Amino acid sequence: MKRIFEIDPWIVKTHELDVENKRLQESITAIGNGYMGMRGNFEEGYSGDTLQGTYLGGVWFPDKTRVGWWKNGYPEYFGKAINAPAFNHIGITVNGEKIDLATSKFTDFYLALDMHQGLLTRSYVYHGHDAAIKFTFERFLSNAVQEAALFKVSVDVLEGHADIQFDASLDGNVVNEDSNYDEQFWQALEENPVAHSITMETIPNPFKVPQFTVTLAQHLQLNGQDVEGVLTTASGTLNETVTTRLDAGEHSDLVKSVVVVTSRDIEPEHQVERVSQLLDGVVAAGFDELLNQQTAIWADRWATSDVVIDGDDAAQQGIRFNISQLFMTYYGDDPRLNVGPKGFTGEKYGGATYWDTEAYIVPMYLAVTKPEVTHALLQYRHDQLPGAFHNAQQQNLAGALYPMVTFNGIEAHNEWEITFEEIHRNAAIAFAIYQYTAYTGDDTYVNTDGIEVLVAIARFWADRVHFSQNAGKYMIHGVTGPNEYENNVNNNWYTNTMASWVLEYTLERLPKANGAVLAKLAVSDDEQAHWQDIIDRMYFPTDEKRGIFVQHDTFLDKDLRPAASIPADQRPINQHWSWDRILRSPFIKQADVLQGIYFLNNRFTMAQKEANFDFYEPMTVHESSLSASIHAILAAELGKVDKAVELYARTARLDLDNYNNDTDDGLHITSMSGSWLAIVQGFAGMRYNDTQLSFKPFLPSTWTHYAFKMNYRGRVLAIDVADTTTIKLVAGEPITVLVNDKPVRLEVEA
Amino acid sequence: MKRIFEIDPWIVKTHELDVENKRLQESITAIGNGYMGMRGNFEEGYSGDTLQGTYLGGVWFPDKTRVGWWKNGYPEYFGKAINAPAFNHIGITVNGEKIDLATSKFTDFYLALDMHQGLLTRSYVYHGHDAAIKFTFERFLSNAVQEAALFKVSVDVLEGHADIQFDASLDGNVVNEDSNYDEQFWQALEENPVAHSITMETIPNPFKVPQFTVTLAQHLQLNGQDVEGVLTTASGTLNETVTTRLDAGEHSDLVKSVVVVTSRDIEPEHQVERVSQLLDGVVAAGFDELLNQQTAIWADRWATSDVVIDGDDAAQQGIRFNISQLFMTYYGDDPRLNVGPKGFTGEKYGGATYWDTEAYIVPMYLAVTKPEVTHALLQYRHDQLPGAFHNAQQQNLAGALYPMVTFNGIEAHNEWEITFEEIHRNAAIAFAIYQYTAYTGDDTYVNTDGIEVLVAIARFWADRVHFSQNAGKYMIHGVTGPNEYENNVNNNWYTNTMASWVLEYTLERLPKANGAVLAKLAVSDDEQAHWQDIIDRMYFPTDEKRGIFVQHDTFLDKDLRPAASIPADQRPINQHWSWDRILRSPFIKQADVLQGIYFLNNRFTMAQKEANFDFYEPMTVHESSLSASIHAILAAELGKVDKAVELYARTARLDLDNYNNDTDDGLHITSMSGSWLAIVQGFAGMRYNDTQLSFKPFLPSTWTHYAFKMNYRGRVLAIDVADTTTIKLVAGEPITVLVNDKPVRLEVEA
Repeated sequence: MKRIFEIDPWIVKTHELDVENKRLQESITAIGNGYMGMRGNFEEGYSGDTLQGTYLGGVWFPDKTRVGWWKNGYPEYFGKAINAPAFNHIGITVNGEKIDLATSKFTDFYLALDMHQGLLTRSYVYHGHDAAIKFTFERFLSNAVQEAALFKVSVDVLEGHADIQFDASLDGNVVNEDSNYDEQFWQALEENPVAHSITMETIPNPFKVPQFTVTLAQHLQLNGQDVEGVLTTASGTLNETVTTRLDAGEHSDLVKSVVVVTSRDIEPEHQVERVSQLLDGVVAAGFDELLNQQTAIWADRWATSDVVIDGDDAAQQGIRFNISQLFMTYYGDDPRLNVGPKGFTGEKYGGATYWDTEAYIVPMYLAVTKPEVTHALLQYRHDQLPGAFHNAQQQNLAGALYPMVTFNGIEAHNEWEITFEEIHRNAAIAFAIYQYTAYTGDDTYVNTDGIEVLVAIARFWADRVHFSQNAGKYMIHGVTGPNEYENNVNNNWYTNTMASWVLEYTLERLPKANGAVLAKLAVSDDEQAHWQDIIDRMYFPTDEKRGIFVQHDTFLDKDLRPAASIPADQRPINQHWSWDRILRSPFIKQADVLQGIYFLNNRFTMAQKEANFDFYEPMTVHESSLSASIHAILAAELGKVDKAVELYARTARLDLDNYNNDTDDGLHITSMSGSWLAIVQGFAGMRYNDTQLSFKPFLPSTWTHYAFKMNYRGRVLAIDVADTTTIKLVAGEPITVLVNDKPVRLEVEA
Repeated sequence: MKRIFEIDPWIVKTHELDVENKRLQESITAIGNGYMGMRGNFEEGYSGDTLQGTYLGGVWFPDKTRVGWWKNGYPEYFGKAINAPAFNHIGITVNGEKIDLATSKFTDFYLALDMHQGLLTRSYVYHGHDAAIKFTFERFLSNAVQEAALFKVSVDVLEGHADIQFDASLDGNVVNEDSNYDEQFWQALEENPVAHSITMETIPNPFKVPQFTVTLAQHLQLNGQDVEGVLTTASGTLNETVTTRLDAGEHSDLVKSVVVVTSRDIEPEHQVERVSQLLDGVVAAGFDELLNQQTAIWADRWATSDVVIDGDDAAQQGIRFNISQLFMTYYGDDPRLNVGPKGFTGEKYGGATYWDTEAYIVPMYLAVTKPEVTHALLQYRHDQLPGAFHNAQQQNLAGALYPMVTFNGIEAHNEWEITFEEIHRNAAIAFAIYQYTAYTGDDTYVNTDGIEVLVAIARFWADRVHFSQNAGKYMIHGVTGPNEYENNVNNNWYTNTMASWVLEYTLERLPKANGAVLAKLAVSDDEQAHWQDIIDRMYFPTDEKRGIFVQHDTFLDKDLRPAASIPADQRPINQHWSWDRILRSPFIKQADVLQGIYFLNNRFTMAQKEANFDFYEPMTVHESSLSASIHAILAAELGKVDKAVELYARTARLDLDNYNNDTDDGLHITSMSGSWLAIVQGFAGMRYNDTQLSFKPFLPSTWTHYAFKMNYRGRVLAIDVADTTTIKLVAGEPITVLVNDKPVRLEVEA
């Protein structure tokens, strides 16, 4: 654990430039607007250790698969989130010295991310030749005009006098660090001095993946007036130099407005025209007005999604940080996009879409955004069915296999134990359809596009199981379960359980589905009977003596020990132990059996839940960012309040406190929903099925009060938990919910 | 199966240039002399599909590990056998046309490898402008002067007249194909026109692996007279042009003598001097004399190693091909070298040394070469103990882990399921010590260097097992057995059995070992007691009902089907099925349980052997070149004569008949001993223990007779099996052997 920002309910702030943890600071001060995003890199540059990162949603590169030994079925390429052309640069030279906080003298450093609307502010007093100057930087990525990024540098000369030179630039000559090879994925097409733009293109690839073209343009205003700097260009870069001279007591500010368009939306030949047009609008509106719009948009978002926690400011800050980062990553504006595991905050992991979306994001977004946002996430998977069919064919299997990692539906990750074996992901796609349908009551998706997805996944599972003559059971061999600290195991209980559930749910939905779609799917009676046979004779490893479901066939033969027995200096084990040692250890990366108990919560008794929690949680090292939240929810359900609160803290402040010692690479975006789930499903005990919403709230002992709002079937509910629980209907038709198993009728107050 | 050469007892020959199978032809006509080797590439060049390959023993490059996702413990580099500077080039231009069999007109093609001494001959009649010319090429790599390669081109003008230009060159600008990246691993240091040499150096690496420097020099003779051609050089190349004019009926020949030295033997600054010196000697001796010496050396080798088979010329050719290729790869001349899986015939696999050496080469070399040769192979492992300690430390384990793939003892392969898990290799190193000691009766190695190796390996196993409270047994989880078509299995019977055997054998040898070595090893009583406890309580999966040892914990739960059920167009499965499908299938790549029964043959009853053979062999696809021989031996022991003969054919002619459809990459050198083992241990039933040599011979029904010779404890035995068996002592002290369990006393006949 490492905490480098101060505690505050709405602001993530620090008064220290933490040189040792610069990358971590950059990750935590990343901002995004769903269309693009950037790490907290300094406008004026920084010559110390830093990870430069600017990212554009849906802009990627298929990088040739490189392995020591090729295995049949490997994807041809690894899909990489690439570092996009940088547009945040505003170099500053004062009296001939280029400001660089790695070398310049400064005091009064301050860095703050305002979570109200995603405004990043930074200031310091620079002490140079003949001058002491306060610099203040503000930036935000607009939600009103998604293509727009705004930067303001304010200069106040405190002492002396200053010849100041700003070098505001666009730079397409960027490389990926995580690619291992420092490769450059961009080539310059044009620098346009009239439009103040550069146009870049991703380099060619042999995989028939389209190249992306992007155009960036900038416009400068000095003290509110348009200013034409001295413009220079080189291949892939454009720079404008603006100079000003200030004496003590004088103030000046430079606003840099940037617009970025990509070939995802605008044909390359129209991009320069389009950026000019957009930039005119942005400049006409101005920094302050766009910031006002930004704040208003976010105020609307917070109005139905904020979680208030009294009595624990660290917890409060954590949940708001997570919600704001999630919304900065994805708010459903573009159904071609998804929630990448690092969002716009780093280049690690590659790919845009993991099962994280369905397993962790959907359950939260259903409640905090309008149904259309979650629907867009479901639609994304339907639109990528062709890729999923391709993936199954790569493994000589029927039906559809949704990818572990993808941009376009085609698997873009190449470790056999993940790509070929972590197939439980396929069930999560189906489970999200169930969740959406049960929560919203809207069955139009499941009856049309959804049933296509369900049948395709069901057909995959029906082909992927085998019948063991030895056991007289259907089995699933050779999988990696949610616990990625075991590979290639047999009969992972979670996978078998969820595969069987998919077949059940598909059989249940089939009779209700749209006739035309059904005709096309042509699921025969024999096929349905075979699915039912698999359900009836599926093997689920269990241990009667312990009363538990067994993670996989030979789990109990391990040297079973609690995670507490691991010496502290060997944690996290994934940074200290060789892979084979991790694999044969009993230590669990994230919820596995417990993930199944979480998903299919109403199928298990409290005794079953408790026995499994008590057996597995002590062996769990929570080294996946996805782990703590699920355990917090189950701990809460089981009345293990201290454990639930401890695990909530871990999920809520995973990045703010750098629990897993890897946030320097970027934030763990997809797991950020976990803190919301821990509060709402955990502490407030929210559950739902097709017909009933219910709560079983409790208040952590160190908190005085918490409150949150939920969208539910056209309504807005406000839940307030203190010593007593108050649930109000803020908007919508009356509804009866269960609170601690007792029906409570809610109506909007007059 | 694909047979492109004609059957002949001593010659591998063809009258056809097989353009479609050019690479296969090149592999089968590769030659080597233990120091260096080359594929059957054409001297005059060839513009069609070809795999150019020249290799120098022990000259390699550490290529950075490239994986999609780094796992702790991965080796930093993959050790690559690199394509060495080429010295076989003799371009030929006739009346202005460059000869290129991909485009030139020719008849009477003939290509032949003479297995008596490794002479490669090729001839054809070229039909060009104004001329018909017979060209004959001869080449061999000298065993008298290991640094020397000799090439002769004979020209007989049949019709017309010919202006002939020879371009004899040395070319250091070579690339590896299998590296995936077409990377060039060499850089030019010098071209020396006086010495007619080039000096190349491997490119730098960041892993502290020494760079190799090599110098090559050539000398030309035209019609027996030294000739100075027109010499040109460019970076890394040297070319000499010699011209001659011939009319019909005239003859000419060009001899190119080449010498190659490397920094393994000669410091870079002395290399040019050394090649000049060596080349003087080679030229003074001349092509014919060196060929005579070559033939004499090989005659000695064949005198104690030839296997004669009457009645089956294909079988006869197969065994001689294998023996000759093995001897061309390794004859114990340099204890720093080993037997690479592709020898000098291809660049695939990387690395020089696999467990193949101990498991397959040692048992044959013990009998066909002098004990010093096998002793050198054992010494090689002792010398690499520091690397083996390093490998174990990489996995946080005690003792020594011999590498899967290496040049220097340090693991140089980077698939976790192999590198970290195919640890059974460690037991084979120990078993080779047992075999050497039992066969030769020489216990000096095992009592000194050998005991160091044994204790180091024993300590590894003692740390690698875990005690399962659940089962009350020691277990070994997370391994890949010899059957590489399963990964990360638990309690692989072979691995557990051999690990336990290592502990037993080490405990047995300890009291007899050299006192000074023992003092250094400091194996305490407690440590020995712990080893004994592991032996006593090791878990060995068995199935009482079937009377078999179970390959690993969950093998019997698979969809068990015979390999015969696989459609022919899906064989070999490793070229058709995705990896996960192979893993969960019941199909076995090579002997696994049966490998253990083969090694520890005298521990099992015939009923056990038969039950296991009958259960596992039908599921075995023999897609490892190492598979058929072990099965042939066991089939022979079990009296399954037809099966034994079928599997012998597969092992003897694996490359000649391209059974596994991959010989175009190079020959399967390390598995070539399998055909010898199948005849000697299989058909002749040769067995031994510390005190007794025995035979149980039979004659395959299609053969009329077979015979072989063996070195045994200072003796030479000649075994001749026809309708009756004759065993003669050719040299050495009298001995009593068992033939069909009856003692037979042998004395040298007067």
